[in-house]
Amino acid sequence: MALIVQKYGGTSVATIDHIRRVAMGIATTKINGNKVAVVVSAMGGETDRLLNLVSQITNYPSYREQDALVATGEQVCSALMAITLESLGHKAISMLGLQLPLITDDIHTKARIMELKTEKIKQYLNDGIIPVVAGFQGVTSEGRISTLGRGGSDTTAVALAAALQADYCEIFTDVDGVYTADPNICPKARHLEKISYQEMLELAGLGAKVLHSRSVELAQKYQVPLVVKSSFGGDNHTWIVNEEEVMENSIIKGVTLERNVSKISLIRVPDRPGIAHKILSPLADAAINVDMIIQNASIDGYTDFTFTVPTTDLAKAKELVSQVAKEIDAQEMLAANNIVKVSAVGIGIKTNPGVASRMFKSLSGENINIEMISTSEYRISCVIEEKYGELAVRAVHKAFELENGSQEVEKQ
Amino acid sequence: MALIVQKYGGTSVATIDHIRRVAMGIATTKINGNKVAVVVSAMGGETDRLLNLVSQITNYPSYREQDALVATGEQVCSALMAITLESLGHKAISMLGLQLPLITDDIHTKARIMELKTEKIKQYLNDGIIPVVAGFQGVTSEGRISTLGRGGSDTTAVALAAALQADYCEIFTDVDGVYTADPNICPKARHLEKISYQEMLELAGLGAKVLHSRSVELAQKYQVPLVVKSSFGGDNHTWIVNEEEVMENSIIKGVTLERNVSKISLIRVPDRPGIAHKILSPLADAAINVDMIIQNASIDGYTDFTFTVPTTDLAKAKELVSQVAKEIDAQEMLAANNIVKVSAVGIGIKTNPGVASRMFKSLSGENINIEMISTSEYRISCVIEEKYGELAVRAVHKAFELENGSQEVEKQ
Repeated sequence: MALIVQKYGGTSVATIDHIRRVAMGIATTKINGNKVAVVVSAMGGETDRLLNLVSQITNYPSYREQDALVATGEQVCSALMAITLESLGHKAISMLGLQLPLITDDIHTKARIMELKTEKIKQYLNDGIIPVVAGFQGVTSEGRISTLGRGGSDTTAVALAAALQADYCEIFTDVDGVYTADPNICPKARHLEKISYQEMLELAGLGAKVLHSRSVELAQKYQVPLVVKSSFGGDNHTWIVNEEEVMENSIIKGVTLERNVSKISLIRVPDRPGIAHKILSPLADAAINVDMIIQNASIDGYTDFTFTVPTTDLAKAKELVSQVAKEIDAQEMLAANNIVKVSAVGIGIKTNPGVASRMFKSLSGENINIEMISTSEYRISCVIEEKYGELAVRAVHKAFELENGSQEVEKQ
Repeated sequence: MALIVQKYGGTSVATIDHIRRVAMGIATTKINGNKVAVVVSAMGGETDRLLNLVSQITNYPSYREQDALVATGEQVCSALMAITLESLGHKAISMLGLQLPLITDDIHTKARIMELKTEKIKQYLNDGIIPVVAGFQGVTSEGRISTLGRGGSDTTAVALAAALQADYCEIFTDVDGVYTADPNICPKARHLEKISYQEMLELAGLGAKVLHSRSVELAQKYQVPLVVKSSFGGDNHTWIVNEEEVMENSIIKGVTLERNVSKISLIRVPDRPGIAHKILSPLADAAINVDMIIQNASIDGYTDFTFTVPTTDLAKAKELVSQVAKEIDAQEMLAANNIVKVSAVGIGIKTNPGVASRMFKSLSGENINIEMISTSEYRISCVIEEKYGELAVRAVHKAFELENGSQEVEKQ
């Protein structure tokens, strides 16, 4: 008998028929003698529907109120799932972030978990009741509803698995695990049976939609074994585990394409010390994630300063940066969202110095111009024009022979 | 400067455009120097959409979970209203039943208010913030979301006005007040400027959709002046006040048609003492409201027993009664929902003994058969076949000359 946390994503619960099928899966897990706690996302499309209502009102909503709004998506789904489980003869109870409670900081729309209390949910589990937790949401110390950012239900599930010391956490989604690239973009993409937390973290952070990055961070930190499965059945799945358990010799593990990227450039900024700080600190205060930063060499005491932000934060970022632009006498502010980020990810990168040039060569072989570059221990990323995004993924995938399973030899 | 509670119903907030218009009305009230607390219903059609999802799963949902589900309708609307008010430059904050908190008993889907705490909301009002309360919902002492029954947002508004000792409570709805009959059914219906709590209570309880009956009860109990206005503008409105303030000599004030009526009959029940209690107590335990009861004269020691319940509770009621039917050896259980209830309401009924016969005569004049009759101090009700419902309303309205304003003479 195991204690399992199961998380079901939006496409898994998109309709009442989907919910019924998922409920039968949960019931089977329970009947097999396990204790099971469930975390659900909103029904597919619901969060977008709610955000669209907001966008009809204003581009600058109160984030606090937007959180109260979108959290209803998961509330609806958790209640429907509990109703369905009860109709199948299993005791079930829906639990909101407020009811667990899952306490967060007060950075609305991207709150971080401070504490997850488990007294109530443990009691339900011990009483044979299936708790159905509304993912994605928490409550601030002020008693306001907060949300953990898009995809935050994964984080709820892993946090819950960690807090309950569950045996493992199953993430049911619309794909049967992690591939070397998005199969919709790259038909030769290959399924991976195991991947390390660190690699998954880079993939998650880079737009591979399988898992929310904070969930992987948490899983690594609390050593929660994580497995990604398809909610539509099939035998494939991907375990996310410690680096030493992966044991394979591939240099890179996958190629990703991130579309939620925009850039802002300040042209002819007087090149004085502290300029970067002055430009970027208002963004940090607004919890906007600045990714790549490029500052051109200074000419005549002036420089150009370019950086990327998520497109979803572009409007807010432009507003903040245009204020700074005046203060620091920049000549002009430009913004563009016709760019994407292509990345190669793998443990092998840190020990194989030739990886970057091999990637650049594959892109130049397709006449794709690289606008910005950034690297980390496990990752090389290039910003390119949006229209070349999918071609670039296929080119890099081919350059590293990722379609070729034989490259990946299990050492044990 | 007054303290005003404003409640906006579903049709007033059916779309983002509606919400924007309502928000401008609220802002005007504030700008005119008043403190204003707002209560909102779900956007028109939303509660039905959610209940329809449930009906796709089961006819016997967990009411606790159904409450958690449908409460999202008001949550969505309160957040959207707060976002809109903030976008217009007014500080606003949404408040759920859980957040006020508005504490109820645990009779899910028709919970009653036990306590409404006002510390937080008073603080917001004193800080110049407009609280936007999600109507219809509360929280049980167990921390579960409860709802007050369809139309319960009116009750939330009046309870809030009472707890805040507001100067008055404005109910904005899709009609501009109370009429002598539903103008859609009876084109000669006349608008009423004032009506007593007691008359309104009978009208509300009988299907005049203007106000939720519990809200009128509460308003009378705590002497909250109540005014019904159209959220689409216009000068008409109806004040609901104490009987002695109405001061008019009309015998009846209005005619109503209630469609949410079904009847259950037990045929050939052995006529033993305690039979009525045995049949009806399971319904009382399930909080199903039994309205009219008829027990035929006993023949050969057997009797027929008929009573009405809301059609919305018919499935549950049939289930409960069919169990009792076996226990008490009833020959058969019949159920029908092709009936309606037509009622005449007015303070004058208790002092004018001829009212009932005048009503019966008007129905027989149209060849309408009366199946069941019940009366109270302020009301005479007849159950008739559904197909005659609208005709009956017009007949009774005409019999009492309600179209004729001169019948209603202000004494002062």
